[in-house]
Amino acid sequence: MIRPKLQIALDHNRLENALADIKKVGEIVDIIEIGTILCLQEGSKAISCIRQMYPDKTIVADTKCADAGETVAENVARSGADWMTVICSASLPTMQAAQQKIKELQVELYGDWTFEQAQTWREIGLSQVVYHQSRDALLAGGTWGEQDLGKVKTLIDMGFQVSVTGGLALKNLSLFQHLPIFNFIVGRGITSEENPMVAAQAFKDEINRIWGE
Amino acid sequence: MIRPKLQIALDHNRLENALADIKKVGEIVDIIEIGTILCLQEGSKAISCIRQMYPDKTIVADTKCADAGETVAENVARSGADWMTVICSASLPTMQAAQQKIKELQVELYGDWTFEQAQTWREIGLSQVVYHQSRDALLAGGTWGEQDLGKVKTLIDMGFQVSVTGGLALKNLSLFQHLPIFNFIVGRGITSEENPMVAAQAFKDEINRIWGE
Repeated sequence: MIRPKLQIALDHNRLENALADIKKVGEIVDIIEIGTILCLQEGSKAISCIRQMYPDKTIVADTKCADAGETVAENVARSGADWMTVICSASLPTMQAAQQKIKELQVELYGDWTFEQAQTWREIGLSQVVYHQSRDALLAGGTWGEQDLGKVKTLIDMGFQVSVTGGLALKNLSLFQHLPIFNFIVGRGITSEENPMVAAQAFKDEINRIWGE
Repeated sequence: MIRPKLQIALDHNRLENALADIKKVGEIVDIIEIGTILCLQEGSKAISCIRQMYPDKTIVADTKCADAGETVAENVARSGADWMTVICSASLPTMQAAQQKIKELQVELYGDWTFEQAQTWREIGLSQVVYHQSRDALLAGGTWGEQDLGKVKTLIDMGFQVSVTGGLALKNLSLFQHLPIFNFIVGRGITSEENPMVAAQAFKDEINRIWGE
């Protein structure tokens, strides 16, 4: 089975704080996400600073793009992003326009998306989706369950590389042990820990333990 | 019938260009939108600069927020936004969290939203929606038609203040003449004109002609 990657989500309000945290864990993680909050607060500078600091890492701009796909993709790619996110409710023309200007798109699954929609994303050549427990849903008491795992499996069976995110703690990873998850996206589960470097390495070690070195 | 407002959408890539355009039309329009592209490129500074320049105008941050509603709303309100947008596929907890931190939300209608969903937004107290022709759909050949007008009317009948946007030209406004549209959102229809000040005033005059002074 493939070994899942580890993506750090930088959802800071200020570039200074994001830089302080990425300096601790940037060499350990596989993918660095410039979170939506950070994009909206600091603009393209958040992407370009981290691109210069980590020239060899995969960087994803979590724009959750809903419209003007071409311009948004062109802008974030110019700043140094390899991938960007689009929201599931974006139109196919928006996704196709974005697709032309950046290496890869991740479709963010929020709200009432359907597998029929997901099939149309496959048909235009998209390969990545991000399955969420939204932060606000988690705050309202939601958690990972069988229903989530079933949907993730269906998406994998459809040919998607599936990233999962939302309130992931070290102890949650084994829930996914029978699935070839593409990528675990973790934010506060690492950055809020007393020692983020130790926390990031613990996620990597747990991934290696479950899915093999 | 109510007289619709006029909102200018600043969808520039660079703050410098947005400031040059808003200086021409800021006193004419009712509402100033910091567009998604501008938010993502320039961050919170785009909001705060325009807040300082136009202390008495309504400012909307077009964040198309899909998650972390509380933080995003708190951030843009602190920068000076009166309103912000949330994407229709955001969860109700996200919308409710955002609602606590900013004066008003506009729900952006993209993709396969339903009137049943819209009813749930009314039930949590949201009053504004933005009905779109997406830029990418327009590029793919879409235009305003009877089906759009029917949906707008249904939303108004549900009690929403409905803003409309997407490829609006002066000649399109009369299409809506029998509807109490809350707000026309225009971007390039004003900023791409040779004289944006004249173009903005022409929109205001046409609104006054159709809906009365």
